[in-house]
Amino acid sequence: MTDSWATFGADLHLELGTGGQAGERGGAAPHGVRGVRAGLVAALREAVRGGRLAAGTRLPSSRQLAADLGIARNTVADAYAELVAGGWLTARQGSGTRVAARPVTRPRAPERRGPAYSLMPGSPDLAGFPRRAWLAAARQALAEAPHEAFGYGDPRGRPELRTVLAEYLARARGVYADPGRVVTCAGFAHGLMLLGRVLRERGVRAVAVDPYGLDVHRDLLADAGLETVPLGAGELPGPGVGAVLATPAHRFPTGDALPARRRAELVRWAGATGGLLLEDDYDGEFRYDGQLVGALQGLDPDRVVYCGTASKSLAPGLRIGWLVLPPALADEVVAAKGGSDWTSSALEQLTLAQFIASGSYDRHVRGMRLRYRRRRDQLVAALAERAPRARVSGVAAGLHAVLELPAGTEPAVLREAADRGLVLEGLARYRHPAAALPPRDALVIGYATPPDSAWTPTLDVLCAALRAVVAA
Amino acid sequence: MTDSWATFGADLHLELGTGGQAGERGGAAPHGVRGVRAGLVAALREAVRGGRLAAGTRLPSSRQLAADLGIARNTVADAYAELVAGGWLTARQGSGTRVAARPVTRPRAPERRGPAYSLMPGSPDLAGFPRRAWLAAARQALAEAPHEAFGYGDPRGRPELRTVLAEYLARARGVYADPGRVVTCAGFAHGLMLLGRVLRERGVRAVAVDPYGLDVHRDLLADAGLETVPLGAGELPGPGVGAVLATPAHRFPTGDALPARRRAELVRWAGATGGLLLEDDYDGEFRYDGQLVGALQGLDPDRVVYCGTASKSLAPGLRIGWLVLPPALADEVVAAKGGSDWTSSALEQLTLAQFIASGSYDRHVRGMRLRYRRRRDQLVAALAERAPRARVSGVAAGLHAVLELPAGTEPAVLREAADRGLVLEGLARYRHPAAALPPRDALVIGYATPPDSAWTPTLDVLCAALRAVVAA
Repeated sequence: MTDSWATFGADLHLELGTGGQAGERGGAAPHGVRGVRAGLVAALREAVRGGRLAAGTRLPSSRQLAADLGIARNTVADAYAELVAGGWLTARQGSGTRVAARPVTRPRAPERRGPAYSLMPGSPDLAGFPRRAWLAAARQALAEAPHEAFGYGDPRGRPELRTVLAEYLARARGVYADPGRVVTCAGFAHGLMLLGRVLRERGVRAVAVDPYGLDVHRDLLADAGLETVPLGAGELPGPGVGAVLATPAHRFPTGDALPARRRAELVRWAGATGGLLLEDDYDGEFRYDGQLVGALQGLDPDRVVYCGTASKSLAPGLRIGWLVLPPALADEVVAAKGGSDWTSSALEQLTLAQFIASGSYDRHVRGMRLRYRRRRDQLVAALAERAPRARVSGVAAGLHAVLELPAGTEPAVLREAADRGLVLEGLARYRHPAAALPPRDALVIGYATPPDSAWTPTLDVLCAALRAVVAA
Repeated sequence: MTDSWATFGADLHLELGTGGQAGERGGAAPHGVRGVRAGLVAALREAVRGGRLAAGTRLPSSRQLAADLGIARNTVADAYAELVAGGWLTARQGSGTRVAARPVTRPRAPERRGPAYSLMPGSPDLAGFPRRAWLAAARQALAEAPHEAFGYGDPRGRPELRTVLAEYLARARGVYADPGRVVTCAGFAHGLMLLGRVLRERGVRAVAVDPYGLDVHRDLLADAGLETVPLGAGELPGPGVGAVLATPAHRFPTGDALPARRRAELVRWAGATGGLLLEDDYDGEFRYDGQLVGALQGLDPDRVVYCGTASKSLAPGLRIGWLVLPPALADEVVAAKGGSDWTSSALEQLTLAQFIASGSYDRHVRGMRLRYRRRRDQLVAALAERAPRARVSGVAAGLHAVLELPAGTEPAVLREAADRGLVLEGLARYRHPAAALPPRDALVIGYATPPDSAWTPTLDVLCAALRAVVAA
């Protein structure tokens, strides 16, 4: 027995002589009492029609297929000839027998046609992804990875990445971290799913959140069986609340930093009640105006869960995030993940570890920080000049600004922008359904989102839309 | 304002003059009324002690840090001098001021010291991962990826990968697939989590499984709220069962293929009851002896969910799998995933798409198939010669063999092997707790697991352990 069966027979997936059970659309067509040649013709035709043999695919020689299937060579040659005559296959000297190009009806992934301009918040400039440096890190990671890295992984994540992250987070974000407290995850959403499950298993029933925040995060907590309760300025969580989800360095979407007094209040609350603070440090690397805002976690590493992500500093498509946890909680999160790392690619983790250790991450963040700061300055200047009635805030850091609008104008501005091909978001959609707040009209402007080439026209469209509504 | 604040201030994370709230271990040390120099010394010392400034880290020049912090240069120089004197920093001409090497107590990831030999099933030969070809595919993927690929992704997975997979699965596994039915996931376990959630939401309460199977899969179903019911040979699922989980091409761990008659029975059951068949095609690419076993899914694409994975054909560490689903179920699985692809790296998906489209996947599978078949042949030959009382089965395909042992000897063989530094598994641990089966002593031998270099000694140890118990 040669390997040709495995190679060609399996690849063609012809089941001559075993048929009878095969349905009409899948498997090989059943041929029952029909001759071997007719069966082969039907099977090949079916394979081409169904798309299992793509146009241009080279078939094995008749001699080879005959040997593989244990039938006469002439039978195969005759079947090929019949299919060539029928337009299913082509036979050309030197190029062998191939599947003919046919208009097979196969659904293509629909092309995504977005609007012309976008200032949707939540995304870095995807055109800025450091492809070359990332490839270099991947090369290094592939060269240095131990064989076991390709196996089923430790649910804590790759030790190389956890070690590098602990050093980086201590240095850059003031996080009290050692690799034993770090658990990698597939981005913040995945981390929040895990934390939600752990909190629920601890008996927690409610989590306090900002009155303005991401509905997707509230939904993830609700999926875990946790109620979310909006926490007003100066309020402390009520007795039923076991944790607070916050974005202290740059609150999302309102854009301010949590004041030092408020930080201390929350830490005291956590210490006194045994509650936990979940710190979503989604864009902590991007701060422009000197006033440093370190991670809340440094104040009380045993009560604060630090959550970081590569989604803003690099790209959401990498799906890499990290949690720095109190040791007891780390064990519970690992248990919630299951016996192995079911989600995160070891290679991507090793690549990120190389990317950070080599200094590429710092370089990239520094470059993007300059780029985003420039955009922020241009945004502020353009608005001051062309839409003076709109007040910008939340711009000391991060990738978005908040633009306060005259009362009642938010929906009209969004409509006007959409009419001009610009999508962006208003503050209203971030409001917690149970929040007790006075109405506040504002835009949440993700100024990192457009590629450089689209930045100036996007800004023009924004200003024009604002003028049309607000100056009217 | 220059960028140096952001660069050095943020990187060092010194919060001079903002202190008072910072706790002892995180953030910068509070300095309150103490002088600026003392505060700087304390902050730097704390940063070194806590590991936030790693040994060897180069500090900014005193001039630069002074400018960044807005304090006198001499103050910084004095603080540096004090810390050099105390052994915290080193200062050398030309090399600047650096953090001294100190025995910081930072837990290292413990080195994993496994047993000397392993025949644990469930893993391919990790040393066979095609690093060079994978890097080439990654390079191509990085060069060709549209910018949007780096953003938040479609929960169905990257369209490039789904298109390539549909073609591959049709050709190689007889799967009736089009990209619209394909949903990518982070390996089979993740796919099973999603399917479990969907089944539970459809009101299913129990899933039939083989009497021997993976406990981790049963646990994942239990986590989703689904009871697992062992299904004996020839039995059909009872009225409360909404789905059957099976490994038709190469049953795990028993190693046989599901007979054609049984396949037809299950498909008829599914059609008659509206049940679903979950086909775990974990090692379908590896079949050695000519008898082709196509995917069950081809028989009824509207009742069979095909689940494939790169974990055996490439590596578990990639965390890439795929589901081919009836269209209605595809929508439900996508909904269960959430509004975005929260788990899988877009780059890894694009790399795998390139890897398959370029022919590297076929080449790799062909090469590994030869390698594994050779090992299988060597295993069978060695056992026939050196442990003739043990009968091998399940070796027509896949990465493991089942070795029947004389009644009652399984635990002793496992102990004997462990004493000789060889880990492997017996059949007992795969048995469903509720299975009604006569006792069956056997080993499940993952012959793909060892690297080539360890293969011969591993085989020797296995035979020696068998002889010691079975021939005794």
